[in-house]
Amino acid sequence: MYRIDLGERMNAPHGPTRLELTELVAALRETAEARDREGGHAAREKQLIADAGLLTIAVPREFGGEGARWVDVYETIRALARVDSALAHLLGFTCLQVVSVTVWGNEAQRERYLRGTVAHRWWWGNAVNPLDTRLIAHATGDGGYRLSGQKGFCSGTRGSQMMTLSAHDPATGKPIFAVVPTTRAGITVHDDWDPVGQRQTDSGSVSFDDVELRDDEVLHRSEVPPTPRATLRTLVSQLVLTNLFVGIAEGALQEARDYVAKNGRPWIHSNVTRAADDPYQLHRFAEMRLKAVSAEALATRAAQALDAAWERGDSLEAGERAEVALAVAEAKVLAHRAALDVSQSLFDACGARATHGPLALDRFWRNARVHTLHDPLDYKLRDIGRFALSGVLPEANLYS
Amino acid sequence: MYRIDLGERMNAPHGPTRLELTELVAALRETAEARDREGGHAAREKQLIADAGLLTIAVPREFGGEGARWVDVYETIRALARVDSALAHLLGFTCLQVVSVTVWGNEAQRERYLRGTVAHRWWWGNAVNPLDTRLIAHATGDGGYRLSGQKGFCSGTRGSQMMTLSAHDPATGKPIFAVVPTTRAGITVHDDWDPVGQRQTDSGSVSFDDVELRDDEVLHRSEVPPTPRATLRTLVSQLVLTNLFVGIAEGALQEARDYVAKNGRPWIHSNVTRAADDPYQLHRFAEMRLKAVSAEALATRAAQALDAAWERGDSLEAGERAEVALAVAEAKVLAHRAALDVSQSLFDACGARATHGPLALDRFWRNARVHTLHDPLDYKLRDIGRFALSGVLPEANLYS
Amino acid sequence: MYRIDLGERMNAPHGPTRLELTELVAALRETAEARDREGGHAAREKQLIADAGLLTIAVPREFGGEGARWVDVYETIRALARVDSALAHLLGFTCLQVVSVTVWGNEAQRERYLRGTVAHRWWWGNAVNPLDTRLIAHATGDGGYRLSGQKGFCSGTRGSQMMTLSAHDPATGKPIFAVVPTTRAGITVHDDWDPVGQRQTDSGSVSFDDVELRDDEVLHRSEVPPTPRATLRTLVSQLVLTNLFVGIAEGALQEARDYVAKNGRPWIHSNVTRAADDPYQLHRFAEMRLKAVSAEALATRAAQALDAAWERGDSLEAGERAEVALAVAEAKVLAHRAALDVSQSLFDACGARATHGPLALDRFWRNARVHTLHDPLDYKLRDIGRFALSGVLPEANLYS
Amino acid sequence: MYRIDLGERMNAPHGPTRLELTELVAALRETAEARDREGGHAAREKQLIADAGLLTIAVPREFGGEGARWVDVYETIRALARVDSALAHLLGFTCLQVVSVTVWGNEAQRERYLRGTVAHRWWWGNAVNPLDTRLIAHATGDGGYRLSGQKGFCSGTRGSQMMTLSAHDPATGKPIFAVVPTTRAGITVHDDWDPVGQRQTDSGSVSFDDVELRDDEVLHRSEVPPTPRATLRTLVSQLVLTNLFVGIAEGALQEARDYVAKNGRPWIHSNVTRAADDPYQLHRFAEMRLKAVSAEALATRAAQALDAAWERGDSLEAGERAEVALAVAEAKVLAHRAALDVSQSLFDACGARATHGPLALDRFWRNARVHTLHDPLDYKLRDIGRFALSGVLPEANLYS
Repeated sequence: MYRIDLGERMNAPHGPTRLELTELVAALRETAEARDREGGHAAREKQLIADAGLLTIAVPREFGGEGARWVDVYETIRALARVDSALAHLLGFTCLQVVSVTVWGNEAQRERYLRGTVAHRWWWGNAVNPLDTRLIAHATGDGGYRLSGQKGFCSGTRGSQMMTLSAHDPATGKPIFAVVPTTRAGITVHDDWDPVGQRQTDSGSVSFDDVELRDDEVLHRSEVPPTPRATLRTLVSQLVLTNLFVGIAEGALQEARDYVAKNGRPWIHSNVTRAADDPYQLHRFAEMRLKAVSAEALATRAAQALDAAWERGDSLEAGERAEVALAVAEAKVLAHRAALDVSQSLFDACGARATHGPLALDRFWRNARVHTLHDPLDYKLRDIGRFALSGVLPEANLYS
Repeated sequence: MYRIDLGERMNAPHGPTRLELTELVAALRETAEARDREGGHAAREKQLIADAGLLTIAVPREFGGEGARWVDVYETIRALARVDSALAHLLGFTCLQVVSVTVWGNEAQRERYLRGTVAHRWWWGNAVNPLDTRLIAHATGDGGYRLSGQKGFCSGTRGSQMMTLSAHDPATGKPIFAVVPTTRAGITVHDDWDPVGQRQTDSGSVSFDDVELRDDEVLHRSEVPPTPRATLRTLVSQLVLTNLFVGIAEGALQEARDYVAKNGRPWIHSNVTRAADDPYQLHRFAEMRLKAVSAEALATRAAQALDAAWERGDSLEAGERAEVALAVAEAKVLAHRAALDVSQSLFDACGARATHGPLALDRFWRNARVHTLHDPLDYKLRDIGRFALSGVLPEANLYS
Repeated sequence: MYRIDLGERMNAPHGPTRLELTELVAALRETAEARDREGGHAAREKQLIADAGLLTIAVPREFGGEGARWVDVYETIRALARVDSALAHLLGFTCLQVVSVTVWGNEAQRERYLRGTVAHRWWWGNAVNPLDTRLIAHATGDGGYRLSGQKGFCSGTRGSQMMTLSAHDPATGKPIFAVVPTTRAGITVHDDWDPVGQRQTDSGSVSFDDVELRDDEVLHRSEVPPTPRATLRTLVSQLVLTNLFVGIAEGALQEARDYVAKNGRPWIHSNVTRAADDPYQLHRFAEMRLKAVSAEALATRAAQALDAAWERGDSLEAGERAEVALAVAEAKVLAHRAALDVSQSLFDACGARATHGPLALDRFWRNARVHTLHDPLDYKLRDIGRFALSGVLPEANLYS
Repeated sequence: MYRIDLGERMNAPHGPTRLELTELVAALRETAEARDREGGHAAREKQLIADAGLLTIAVPREFGGEGARWVDVYETIRALARVDSALAHLLGFTCLQVVSVTVWGNEAQRERYLRGTVAHRWWWGNAVNPLDTRLIAHATGDGGYRLSGQKGFCSGTRGSQMMTLSAHDPATGKPIFAVVPTTRAGITVHDDWDPVGQRQTDSGSVSFDDVELRDDEVLHRSEVPPTPRATLRTLVSQLVLTNLFVGIAEGALQEARDYVAKNGRPWIHSNVTRAADDPYQLHRFAEMRLKAVSAEALATRAAQALDAAWERGDSLEAGERAEVALAVAEAKVLAHRAALDVSQSLFDACGARATHGPLALDRFWRNARVHTLHDPLDYKLRDIGRFALSGVLPEANLYS
């Protein structure tokens, strides 16, 4: 069920073999507790991920990438998330920026940025948060802009080579979307990300001080309504979150199992001689597994639906896209709950000694808790309820 | 998601088209409330099911049946269960007896009973409950037996043409399994089924008074350990139950939606003008749908696993079979809960007037409640927990 | 915890002793299944309740009644509801009409109706549902009215001697509240109550054909804003419902315990020899008990708060009344959920044979399900949430 | 509901006034985030607690203490736990050691240790964990012992003046219980407590290197079976935990409310203008409050039962004691769940920005998570289930 089985499928030059992925996961696991405690930037581990060839799994084959199916991309993200959901998030968001270029960019931009990603193994940062309107884009009259202001929650920007951004254009009152090299003059990436979980996602703030933005770096201007295909970007993003949650649930279950196998002792009044025979432990593990399994099943279904929609290309219609959005919303709710529930139950499974600080077993819950707040579950449920009650599919917006 | 899409696939001579199935479902729905109240035997509706060609969907093509894949068989059962889970149970259990012959019978028995099912549209009854050891098989020395005693919970036996049974052989201390025509001399089918739900499953008791059982009617003698393939019968049975539960959940959701669309009024303090805009109704329907959707997803996965195991034929190994058993157990837990929860929530969705007796909207809950007690959920969870905690797959037994 | 301990406290002439109450409960229990199946009017059992002296427990001592504290009134209602929540509802609603006279009536009305209740052991019906505006009161110029129209959900009216009602006065656009003898000319009580649960609450419809209503029978005209004390009536009503739910939960738990003690058999794969030692049964009963116990604790707290508010008499202020309303709302939510959950779990505890129709063990769930739809839980939760989030207490309205 | 109302009741010389307690709570709240991050020993805050006179609330009046009722002791512990459950635990465990002396000690010991607590404001540490048998007591022949070995989870020992301990006596194979000054030669308190929550409970390990234990310091030898009254110590301990959990739930709810009031912004798709009007926030706060309120109600009931048992003194019988144990178990389950659920929901209420590290809002969940593992909930539920199913009350043991 939780088998990583990518070697057979992702066989483009840059893709990892199954063995390489297994080794990468093991390497990330080894330092996970320590890095959770330290927080900050995981330069070494990001290099391991790049070395394993994972940065290009979402780059289409025509530009030299793996062009992996979404089910495989997400299975890879889940594999990492089982041991480190912060780094899995970084990988997922690099894939997301690659998608942004793929669906928003013109031919020249795709050539430049997608081939560049393959050639230089770029990590991508994300300063696309249209709700944060503090970054202003002043038109320069030649199709370009000068950028000034701030962006928050810029996941992956620290240590990245390229970044996407949205900026408010006061002339139109709408946002533009663009790509810039992270090292461009005037850009300052701040080391101010200090959350209670997902501590190594480098989601700090970025300042822009009169930064140049060239006409050919602008991916999308809001006066053009996006095609259904272009709005798949949001669903790719939501499924990244969903699969992080599934990975956290699966990882927490794995840790609980390993811990009980190694350290479990039956309760003095349990009348069993092995912790693994305690009837209540068995029920607990069943519930943990059921949450993980059902979340994974819906996540895989949604990824399959996304693959089908993706293959429709520019023929994709709004209604078809909305059906994928529904499947994504459903998967996200189950994954959200699975991540929180399983990571909390881990401790009931393992007992008091598992709260020893250096084990950092609370990182699963803290990671789940931070990341599940990205956008409120309540309104995903409302979308699902509208369909269930009235047959109205979710509309495309910033979170759906 | 809930689309009935069988017409394209089940195209053997006797199989229904999609349109026929839709019409059948509509016909069953029309009388569902009344028949729930009356209970008893649904001769007319059973004839409609037979006329639609559904009795042979599980008969292999080589014997003239549809030989449908399990995913399609279960989708058909779910389609019926949405409007009438009692009759869906009767269909499911006829399929189950067909499978019993397929996996336990010898070539001659398969010829006789499977071709007979196609030729005569037999309904099959079930007196196979090895926990009930009151029926005694006295060996007659020629491979045959004389049967005397009782069997309870003999679903579908009333009104059937053929039946399977298990009987206790005092000579070996073990059960035998066999087929007899329901009309054979000495067999009395009692009209004593009066439960609070699943009222038309004809699951009353059957008496046997010195009934002849011929050697060539014995399907299986316990001294031969069953092959992994033969034990798939139990999983077919458990997935029948699972899909009844899924169908109940889906049907209750559909009824709730229809009722609210037709009769819903916003609560006086809700500040909305349409019941369908009530924020809490939206959440309720979302939760109802999520339960139904996740149960259906796991049920479909399990059916796919069963199809794969089925195709392995006699090469199927115990470990492979056990993986299917795990998937079935997981699906059953979710389906069990979905059926109860959604059928209870139906009333919160519809409000006080929906409790009017003739509407019989409580039949979904009563049907779910009766059928989910077939075997205890607790021990399905224990099986799942054992795998989740220790990697031990479920062992083949009467319920797994 | 569930002890009935009234004998010591309700020692006015008409009040029951503890022994009498125990005997009454036993008598109601004896016919509960049969009467649930039959539905209709429970004349014989209502007489038993009247004979036990329970109709006057809420009549103040100054008018010859018991003037029992609310905690005792509700404990009595719960005691009946454990075995028959329909008859407990009838008793509760007779108490409620007594309260209506107490808080809405003038001195003469209290004399007439409260002393009358003591002298004649009147059962009271309830046609006070201001949301149902089909009953019109045409002013006759002398302070009286002529009543024409319909009322629905008139609990307890069939077989009652007196009834309260609300009617729409087209001259003011507002309702009036009044008392009439049920036998008055022009009143027809219909035998049209046929719900899936609470089948003997006699909550059918009542027609009024130019019925006389005298000036001195009008309890309340809406132009006079009610005092905080007068609005306690709604809280008395909500606590009747709450305690019915608690009683259902306690009764279902008791039935489950008795059934398992008498019929319980360990599951074949449980490795225990007594059903009562099954570890999962133990957890199930624990959860059932916890739901019942916590609901009862909050219900008792709320009744104590009501007693304190009641004793404040006309000095009661709106804010104090609102604090009671909050406590009532909290208790009602827990009781609502306890009734549904415990009555559903009863079957998991008892197993498949407990679904035999004549046992009617589903009556607990059906009773709970019907009665918990009186007014939607969602808006009780909203009231509680407003206080929890913003410190705003519930406002007095028809349901709070 | 959450009102601190002690000033009127605890009016012995050393007890705090209500104002003093309010000020103490405010002072502890001010540094709670920083101290959670730092962990280690809270010398300054422990002094504030001592200065407020809280160390003697459980010392009987005859020895100069407040002799507060248990309901008041626990209300005080809850008041502290709302802002700092680690320090509340230290206070609770000092009360627990005081109780140990009260119920296990002889007259001279009570005089010495209880009057000493009043005179010197001793903090007490706890090395009584009979499951940890690494500390050996070698009898010296004069009724005393020499102690050598280790004890773990010695809450409050660091910074304490006195401590209780249990030690394994190899001569009898049973534990003894005793008091020693923490500063006695040979005792080393280690600074090795580094958990993920409850970080300032000083629950590290203690080494004993040939430590003198005098005859008159031994409180209890296991050859004497404890009286029912003596076993109340376990219930006092379990109710300390219970009330810590209730306090955490109430504190998390208060923080959530304050945060939303100050920082709440409505979700962009919510159609409301104030976060406090979001319908889903209202339901969330309702559920949070219901959990806190019902846990508090059962905790208060259990404390009242303990007070009644306590007042029975040496006349207390085993059955009466067991009824208190049942009430304590029930309260503990609800409190356990309330603490975890409310502290997790806090984040859904507050949103993504509330995960900023320096706010340390995850401390409520981490504190709840660590402390709820003290002994497994599963076996509390089993105790409750045994009573609910078979009427068997919990037996007195180390955790019940």
